[in-house]
Order: sequence, then C-alpha cells, then structure tokens
Amino acid sequence: MGSAEKLKVGIVGGTGYTGVELLRLLAGHDEVEVTTITSRAQQGVRVSDVYPSLRGIFDIVFTEPSRELLSECDVVFFATPNGTAMQLAPELLQSGTRVVDLSADFRLSDVAVWEQWYGQTHACPELLPEAVYGLPEVNREVIGDARLVANPGCYPTAVQLGFLPLLEAGVVDTEHLIADAKSGVSGAGRKASVGSLLCEAGDNMKAYNASGHRHLPEIKQGLERATNCPVGLTFVPHLTPMIRGIHATLYAQLTEDVDVQTLFEERFCCEPFVDVLPPGEHPETRSVRGANLCRLSWHRPQEGDTVVVLAVEDNLVKGAAGQAIQNMNLMAGIEETAGLRNAPMMP
Amino acid sequence: MGSAEKLKVGIVGGTGYTGVELLRLLAGHDEVEVTTITSRAQQGVRVSDVYPSLRGIFDIVFTEPSRELLSECDVVFFATPNGTAMQLAPELLQSGTRVVDLSADFRLSDVAVWEQWYGQTHACPELLPEAVYGLPEVNREVIGDARLVANPGCYPTAVQLGFLPLLEAGVVDTEHLIADAKSGVSGAGRKASVGSLLCEAGDNMKAYNASGHRHLPEIKQGLERATNCPVGLTFVPHLTPMIRGIHATLYAQLTEDVDVQTLFEERFCCEPFVDVLPPGEHPETRSVRGANLCRLSWHRPQEGDTVVVLAVEDNLVKGAAGQAIQNMNLMAGIEETAGLRNAPMMP
Amino acid sequence: MGSAEKLKVGIVGGTGYTGVELLRLLAGHDEVEVTTITSRAQQGVRVSDVYPSLRGIFDIVFTEPSRELLSECDVVFFATPNGTAMQLAPELLQSGTRVVDLSADFRLSDVAVWEQWYGQTHACPELLPEAVYGLPEVNREVIGDARLVANPGCYPTAVQLGFLPLLEAGVVDTEHLIADAKSGVSGAGRKASVGSLLCEAGDNMKAYNASGHRHLPEIKQGLERATNCPVGLTFVPHLTPMIRGIHATLYAQLTEDVDVQTLFEERFCCEPFVDVLPPGEHPETRSVRGANLCRLSWHRPQEGDTVVVLAVEDNLVKGAAGQAIQNMNLMAGIEETAGLRNAPMMP
Amino acid sequence: MGSAEKLKVGIVGGTGYTGVELLRLLAGHDEVEVTTITSRAQQGVRVSDVYPSLRGIFDIVFTEPSRELLSECDVVFFATPNGTAMQLAPELLQSGTRVVDLSADFRLSDVAVWEQWYGQTHACPELLPEAVYGLPEVNREVIGDARLVANPGCYPTAVQLGFLPLLEAGVVDTEHLIADAKSGVSGAGRKASVGSLLCEAGDNMKAYNASGHRHLPEIKQGLERATNCPVGLTFVPHLTPMIRGIHATLYAQLTEDVDVQTLFEERFCCEPFVDVLPPGEHPETRSVRGANLCRLSWHRPQEGDTVVVLAVEDNLVKGAAGQAIQNMNLMAGIEETAGLRNAPMMP
Repeated sequence: MGSAEKLKVGIVGGTGYTGVELLRLLAGHDEVEVTTITSRAQQGVRVSDVYPSLRGIFDIVFTEPSRELLSECDVVFFATPNGTAMQLAPELLQSGTRVVDLSADFRLSDVAVWEQWYGQTHACPELLPEAVYGLPEVNREVIGDARLVANPGCYPTAVQLGFLPLLEAGVVDTEHLIADAKSGVSGAGRKASVGSLLCEAGDNMKAYNASGHRHLPEIKQGLERATNCPVGLTFVPHLTPMIRGIHATLYAQLTEDVDVQTLFEERFCCEPFVDVLPPGEHPETRSVRGANLCRLSWHRPQEGDTVVVLAVEDNLVKGAAGQAIQNMNLMAGIEETAGLRNAPMMP
Repeated sequence: MGSAEKLKVGIVGGTGYTGVELLRLLAGHDEVEVTTITSRAQQGVRVSDVYPSLRGIFDIVFTEPSRELLSECDVVFFATPNGTAMQLAPELLQSGTRVVDLSADFRLSDVAVWEQWYGQTHACPELLPEAVYGLPEVNREVIGDARLVANPGCYPTAVQLGFLPLLEAGVVDTEHLIADAKSGVSGAGRKASVGSLLCEAGDNMKAYNASGHRHLPEIKQGLERATNCPVGLTFVPHLTPMIRGIHATLYAQLTEDVDVQTLFEERFCCEPFVDVLPPGEHPETRSVRGANLCRLSWHRPQEGDTVVVLAVEDNLVKGAAGQAIQNMNLMAGIEETAGLRNAPMMP
Repeated sequence: MGSAEKLKVGIVGGTGYTGVELLRLLAGHDEVEVTTITSRAQQGVRVSDVYPSLRGIFDIVFTEPSRELLSECDVVFFATPNGTAMQLAPELLQSGTRVVDLSADFRLSDVAVWEQWYGQTHACPELLPEAVYGLPEVNREVIGDARLVANPGCYPTAVQLGFLPLLEAGVVDTEHLIADAKSGVSGAGRKASVGSLLCEAGDNMKAYNASGHRHLPEIKQGLERATNCPVGLTFVPHLTPMIRGIHATLYAQLTEDVDVQTLFEERFCCEPFVDVLPPGEHPETRSVRGANLCRLSWHRPQEGDTVVVLAVEDNLVKGAAGQAIQNMNLMAGIEETAGLRNAPMMP
Repeated sequence: MGSAEKLKVGIVGGTGYTGVELLRLLAGHDEVEVTTITSRAQQGVRVSDVYPSLRGIFDIVFTEPSRELLSECDVVFFATPNGTAMQLAPELLQSGTRVVDLSADFRLSDVAVWEQWYGQTHACPELLPEAVYGLPEVNREVIGDARLVANPGCYPTAVQLGFLPLLEAGVVDTEHLIADAKSGVSGAGRKASVGSLLCEAGDNMKAYNASGHRHLPEIKQGLERATNCPVGLTFVPHLTPMIRGIHATLYAQLTEDVDVQTLFEERFCCEPFVDVLPPGEHPETRSVRGANLCRLSWHRPQEGDTVVVLAVEDNLVKGAAGQAIQNMNLMAGIEETAGLRNAPMMP
C-alpha cells in the first residue's frame, strides 16, 4: 500500500501518556500515517523534543488544535482530558472524519449519570446514542460501522473482560460483585501532581476513591448490558508503585456449579487480544507490558462458591492506546491486529 | 536501669529480614541487651559484615545455635524458617527462657490443620495448648503471663485487626468475607529466589496462592475465636513492587446499620499501635514504614451494605519484628511501647 | 530535663521533605520541643493531616510565618526555598534566636558568586561573613559559637567529606578533580514537577546540569579552604530512581604514594557520623538510609595513580535535616549525637 | 519472502534475560525463524511456560543443546554464561553454521588476558584471531564476512561509542580516561542471587568491582585499537535500581580545542543506531528502553578542558540482544535494521 493510500490519522492532546503511546504503536503500523498532532501547550515544538524516545521516528510538530487540519484526517483520536472531545467531535463527524475518544466523554449513555460523575454539563448529549462503546470483545460488529467510538477506561476494560463470561452465562450472584483493582501510576497521567511523584507513590500502596470512582458507572453499565439486570458492584481502585499495568482481582459468588475454565476459553476463543491462562495460573502485569493484551485466570479457593478472577492488562495499551488502535482498525476495515502484534517487554 | 539489669535477649536465625529488623529496633530499646545471635550459615561472621547498616551499632558475631548460650537469655526470638523453633523451644522453656516465635510453628492450635498446611509433622504438639497467639490487641493479658508466644503472620495481623471490630460486634455476614491483600517483597524473605529479583518483581504485580495460602487457616482461627462461629473467608495475597508494607483491603456485608467509625474508634481507643483514621481517609503503607503501627479506615460505597476496610502495616514491624518486641515487652513487664516509639520514615 | 527546660525549636517551611524529616528526627530528640512550624500554603492545617506518618506524634498546626512566634524560639530551622531565609534571618538573630538555614542563602561567602549562581540579589550580604558553614567535620568549634549556620547542600556534604582527607594531606592533583554524583529523587523536593513523577524518574537514569550545578561553587569553596589553593573540579550530578540516598564517586590523581586507608581513618577517627569502611569495600546508600551518616571507602584500580573514593549518605539526613540537628546540638551545647542515634533502615 | 527461505536461527541458553530478549526482538523480524532453543535446565518445557509474555508468540520447546539441531541453523546465538560458547563453537563453525556469541568467550584477542580476567583456560584459542568484535560502528565491513562474531559487553558498547570520536580524532589525553557507568539490575542476569533481590537492589545504589571489572580489558582493547597507543582507563561500574538501562558518564581531558558536536555528528552521521543529541542535552536511559540505540551527548563544564560524554543504551538491546541481531543481519546480508525498528517504550 503506497503512502498516498495510508489512513490519515490525527491526535488531539498528544503530550500525555496515551498520546505518546499512540505514537509509539502507530510508528509500527504500516497502513497509517500520523498527519496531525495537537497540543495547546506545546504548539510549535517538535514531538521528539517533548519525547526524546521518538527522535528519528516522528519528525512532526505539535500544532494548535485546528478543525481544518483535523477534518482532513480519516480518523482522529482524542487523548485529551474529559470535556474536550465533546466540544470538537460534532464538527469533525460532520466533516466525515471518524472519532475515537480515549477520554470519558462518550462512555456513558445516560447523560444524567455522566453529568453527576464528571461534574459538568455534557456539550453534545445528542451524540450519546450514536457513540459505540469500544470494547471489541463485546461490540466488534457495531464498531466496524461506527463514526464515533468511546474507548473504554483502563479499569473498565480489565474488570469487564474478567466478569463477562460469568455474567453472560448467568452463573454468579450479580448483586455482590467485588472488583479490587490495582493500577500503575501512569494511569494518573503526565500532569505534575504531588501524589504521582516518585517520592510519594514509590515504595507505597494505597486505595483511593474507595467510596466511588468514575469508572464505577462505566463498569456497571457494561455489566448490566451483559446481564440485562441491575448489578451490584463494589469497585476499589489502588495506586501501586509501578509505571504500567493494571491487575484486577474480581470476586463473585457462583450460583451454580460450572466448568469455569471452559466458560472462559469458549468466550474468548476467537479473541486476538484476550488470553485465558491454563487452570491454576496467576497472570502478572509485566507479561503484557507494552502489548495490547488482557490475560485472565480464575481460582475457586477451597472449592467453595467464591470464584476469583485475575485479569491483567497494560493500562496504556489494552487499557487505552492499543485498544483505540484496535477500534480504529475495525472502523477502517484494516486487519484488527495491525500495528498491535509486538511482543510484551519482559523484563 | 543499669546495664546489669537489662533483659538478656537472644535471636535465632538472625540473617533474614526479620532478624535484622529485630536488631534495628532493639538498638533503640534501652532496657534490652542482645547477648546472642545465631546463624548456621554465618557463624563467626560479624553482624555488621552481613548488615553494614549496623556498623558501629552492633559489635556482635553470629554463633552456631547453642542451647547453653540461648538458655542464658531471658527471652529468645526465633526468626527462623518454619520448623526450627519447634525443635528448640521445649528445652529453652524448660530452662526458664521465654520464647517469642516469629515463624508459624505455634500459631495454629489444631495440629492436624498445621501439619496439612505446613507439610511436616509437628515436633512438639504438646506445647500448642500453652502457646499464646501474640496479637496484643486480642490477648494482651495472657501474653503477659506467657512462656511461649506465637507471633502472628504479617497478613494475619492486618486482616484480623481490620475485621475484628465488625466480627466482635456481630454486624457482618461471616460467611463471605473477602481479604484482598498486597504485600511488599520483603515478605518473601532474604533467600535468593528468582521470583523476588528486582527484574522479576519490579514494575510488576500479581496474585499468588489464590487457591490457598498458609495464612488462611491462621486468619480463620483468629476470626472464629472472635465470633465463636465458623467463618467463610476468601484470602488472596498479591506481590507488589515495594520493599516494605502490607495493604489489606477487606470486604464484608453489613447485616445491620451501625456507626462503623464509632465501632472502630471504640475498639481501638486504648491501643498504642492501632490508629483509626478520620472518616473518608485512605491509609497508605508508607505512613507506617519502619514503625509498629496498623492504620485503618473504612468506606461504605454508595451507602450500600458492603463495608470496605483498609488496613496498612509495615510487614517487618507490626507484621513481624515490632510486634515481637511488643510481645516481649508485655512478657517482661516492660512498658509496652519501649523501643517502638520511632516515627515512620516518610518519604 | 523537664519540658520547661527543653530547647524551643521553630521550623520555617515545614511542608517539604527536609521539613518533615526534621520533624521525624526531632520526634526522637528528648531535649527539644518543636513549638512553631510555619507554612504559608498550609496554615491552619494540622501537620499530621499533611503527613499522616506523624499522626499521634505531632499535634501541632502549621501557622503563617510570624516573627513574634519565631523569635520566641531558641533555634529556628529554615527548610525553605532559596531566598527566604535571607529575608527573615536578620530580625531573628537580632532577637537572640539562632538560625540554621538548610537552604543555600548563606553557604557562599562571596556574594557575587552567590548572586551569579542563584540569580537574585542577596538580601543581607552583611551577614555572610558571620555565617558559619555547617560541616561539623570541618567547623565543629566555630559552629558551637555561631548564631547563624549555613547547613551544607546534600551533594557538597558527600563530596567534601570524600575529598577532604586527600586534599588536606596534599597528596592529589587538585586541578582535575572529578565528582560523579548520583542522587535519589527526594533531592528535588516535594514540589509537583513532571520530571520527578514516578513515571518519568522511575526505571530511568540521567545526568542533569552537567555544564554547571549550583552545588559546584559550594564544593569548590570548601575544597579551596582545605587546600588554600584554587581547585579544578568537574561535578556531574545524576538523577537515580530511588527515594533517598546520594552516592558520590570521586576521582583524583595521586601525586605521591600514600596509605590512603590510614589517611581516611585518621582524618575521621573521632567523627561520630563518618564511617570509613575496611579496604576493598563498596558502601551502599541504603546502609545509611534514615541515619545521619556518611560512609566512605576508596579504591586504587590496577594500583595506578588514580584514587577512587566512594561516599554515601542519606540526602535528607546527613545531607540535610540530620546535619542541621547535629549543628543545632553543637550550637546549643547538647550532646552532638542527641536525636541522631537511630539505626539505618534496611531493607 | 516465504517461510522456506527464512534464516534459520538457534539460541543456546535461552532462559536468561538476553535469551528472552532475543526472542522478543526476533518475534518481530520477518526474515528469521527461530528453529531451536536450548536449555539444559528447562528442556521439554515450553518457552511460553517460562516466559508467559511469549504465550501465543512462540510455540517452541526448550531442548537439550544438540550439535545436530544447532548445526542445521544458519546462525546460532550463544546467550550462555562465559565458558560455554568456546566449547561448542568450533564444531558449529565447521558445519557451516555461523555464530554470534553474546558471552565474553571471544571478545579479547589476547588469550592470556582473557584467562587472567575470566579465571579459566580458553578452550579454543585458535579461534580468537578469526573472531570479529561485533561493534558494527567500528567493524561493519568485517562483520559482514565473519563466521564468528564476539558480541560486545553491555558496558563496553556504551563506553566505546562515547569515547571513540574523541580518541579517533586524537584530541584527548588517553592516559587518564574515566568511565563512571551505571547499570540496571538486569545486567546481572536472571540467576537467583541475594544481591539482585528487589529488597537488596531496590531504593539503593552502589559501586561494585571498583578495583577491576571484566569489562575493563575489553574496553581498553577497543580504545587502544582506535588510537594505536596504550590507554589509561579507570572504569567504575555501579548498580542502579532500574530494570534496564546503562548510563555511562565519561571524562577526558581535551588536548586541543575542537568542535566536539561536529566531531560526534560526523563520526556517527550514517549510523542507524547511534543518535547524537543537540548541544546541551542530557540523554536518559528510558529514551532507548527496548530499542537498539545508543544516544549520546557531551558537555564541557565551565568551558574548561574536561569533556564529559553522556551515553545511554538499553543493556539488553544495544548492549546485548539487539546488537547481536544487528550483527546477524550484517552477516546474513539482511538489511541492518531488520527487526530492530521498534520505538523505545516510554514511559
């Protein structure tokens, strides 16, 4: 495929960790060309001056977000704080550009719930019904036809993939689900904040937002769609002293005796980016570091009725930029795994 | 108190992390003198050659474990692998020396359960009825009179302290308790093992022994004593890339509406080493780094019936060496906080 | 000593890492009472709310810097950014309060050099001749009589202690000294800056300010005082992914054949806080973690004329707060090691 | 290119970090097929069971080292401890298989020096004259024709690339070169050793082998070949708490005034894997994490005669497996950058 035929891609908000991760992965994607990358704060600066890791790979310069430049793209990724994509998306869609939003603007279909958790008025609630929730393992077909994809949050990806086989099969009590999730610090983004300093987050562990985290309604929405009934979920996120990685430990009560291994293997047998481990294993976050993968295993301690699901992903890849590219591939009719076949980096 | 009157203390197995932590803390304990420290592997070597951090502080040499030398001590700590203390303790007790065992040899009162989980025959089951479980917040009075104290495991200390107020008050469903615990790597000890290498455990997170960990029966025993009824507990430990610290996240279903904050504050109001945080807080492991403390808080997400308790401790201090010294103080009639008043090290 | 007779101590700028480290160490100092701690940003907030590690230890509240309150102190520590102490010190000194400044305001005796490196006009150059450079291993006697002590920088402490024996003995070429120094991230302070984020500084290493760092003139001043001749020094600091610790690797050319071990041992034989290791050893930063110590060793590779000195310290203790307390002890006629006898924390 | 035409590659000693890194990189190399991977300890075990990161990528099983299987390969990599390759290489070469040895067996041309530093008798000194030192930036042409390539050590790669422009141009004093190098812990390999535990190497820094490290004669040999005169080098390696990365800080005295930036840019202008940063920059190790790159910059503090060169690489890539693949590409006439074009992983 010649350069002229490559998919033209734009990135809005390219200075954060999901932005640079999009660039790292797209650098290895043969069918894509990054034509525009925007940053208000860094306009005029070379991408490789902000990210020396990209010296010699991207020769591009950050520009001010411009509707003209962006509307020339086939696909635009929003790697922006919540509240930005909903301002720009309508116009871009109108000009025929498709949008993958890595922020939370289009993840919840209930605008009231969104406004409650995100503390602002939604700028284009009329787009919410059209926005497709970009979890390919659930919505692959619809994503292929979508103009606007809401890329899932990092926690919601791991938690939903871990719970889905059990909930879809209707074999667990859905009233008392527990998701104890641990994230690396990159999940907090690249903004200067005291809590993310090496001297604060290093050699340390803590829960945060135990009384309610924004990813809770997103996860509940996904699980309720899978079961068609209300779901009771306790979700406690934790900050862990690692750079990348999410480890979700999920607890549910089995309501019938099932072969959990078969359930998981069958549910994900055709999924290129979900790996069910052999019985008895424990996945580790580094086994997916840098790769678009979710690895899963399950345990049933003392053969009781509690099933424990362990799910790991790289929060910046399957939990953000990798999944966004997976969605882009589906939307553009490119092979789903294009640009996403690199092996995890270990150690 | 003159040097002649100091409590004579011996340490068996002084080369591991709990051994060196005993030394670090005892160095600041004015009423104690470490007279003997043993190590088969390092006999004849100065303690400060193995642990340069102790240069200028301890001028003592590792010796072979000798019953004569040890029986001259007032108190002997066993900081040994499981299976060693039960060989030596009977003779020491007979000679009038009191014993604090930091290993698991005397933690379970049911010898059959012990032998099942620890995979060996117990060498002195006749001592199990006498051994006192060294959790001062439960057994303070009995510890004071004990000859033999079984120092609790690191996970069991945090999990029990977090659950006790709820279980003693009888306000939660005891059939489906969940303890999701995260430990720093020092919990695995100082032995050369691939899994504890910086390049394996660093920037990584994983669960382990999800189907059953040796601390499970110990925790269950403690919780069942508190409730006088069988307890259903799922306990999943995780390895976290930090050196010290345990974070236990505990989940229970409330069976009645109680003032959880008051429950916790009243339960621990007189405890020198348990700190209940103000409502809504999240304790972090570094807030107790190096100190003999367990800090607790609780949450009730979405005002539902699930209560989440967060408990942190330094696994080497309140989870091992510090608690052992606390027990020694109680046994010897020294002030309980002696040698344990140092402030946590932050950052 | 009754509470009434305790030394009254104030801390200006108590929210940074050197401030909280002063509190941690002073908590164990029996002859001192912290009566005032100031912070513009946190006034009215309890110290233990900013630093949960100090809950139950300090019940004090941050106040606005007030000359009245501070002048009631016997000693005031400035743990402030550069440029603050020089505004407040003159008045405090006039009121009879003694000052230990942990910032750089009084470290250089040449005001022109100071203004060049620190980019501001000095507010009270008239105090510079009186200010004593607080390196007790050089200036112990003078510190005892001082009203105003300039506490050395973290790098300068390690580099000077490592070079001094060689320079004072006149056995190395002073024109081409090299100091390659590596610091933990806490040296950058507790301010929110992208470069100190765990995701930026973690699993990473880099030199910075290789062309010139503010500690260069301070080190040169100290070395030139020791030799009474100009010194040529190349000083390259590096950022290392650890929380605490400085490792200085020093290179010099021997101009005569000397017994380096004896030179070092004799120079520091009476120093309570400098430890010369046996020949052939390599000190590690964690061997002094949390303690007021500098450990040193030296090597002479291939028996050539290059001598390599290895010096480690905890940048927050011997490199800042610990040395400041050591200076306070000397100024107040308290035993030099008071409050500074705690053992390093390992692991 | 069809699978039948792919280069057949074998790896001896595939369980260490350089072995798994070869696999990770070769997984993305379209012109290569890994046909054999050996491990005595793990024979019969799937590669993906030892390295879960490779699940779904390599379906291969570790076998016992077999001369028959290996001699069917076009190229065999030795990722073995020192002393193994020299046992097997002669036979493989005879059978027409080419060898890239990542160990030290063929790095030194002087057998006496080798035997002194490696403490064993060399098994095939007759091959030393033929072995080509695999630093493509020096020996590119010769490597293309070689049957046996000695892949450089991790430290020697960074130190030589940093010094070469200065030494080849003859503009520095070669008698007093200093290389202060800092390595991540993966440089110590995947063997279970106490010193590499997270709790020993984490949050810690130390020099090691300051009196003499095995990479010293290798570096000297390379530098002396560049200058055709004896070189005086002090080389001090340090262990740093990161997983991957080497940072070499090099010091030399300029003997004439040169444009150092131009010198470096011209020396490496055509090198695909050496990047000279703009003047005044400081390279950081993570900017090359996972990539086959050495980034360099230089400083001349206070415009004096000391030049400081900063060189970073990923010790497992440009310092080992990546450079080995670069050598393989050259030997096999494949494009030099094949399989090595992935972007560094940041953060």
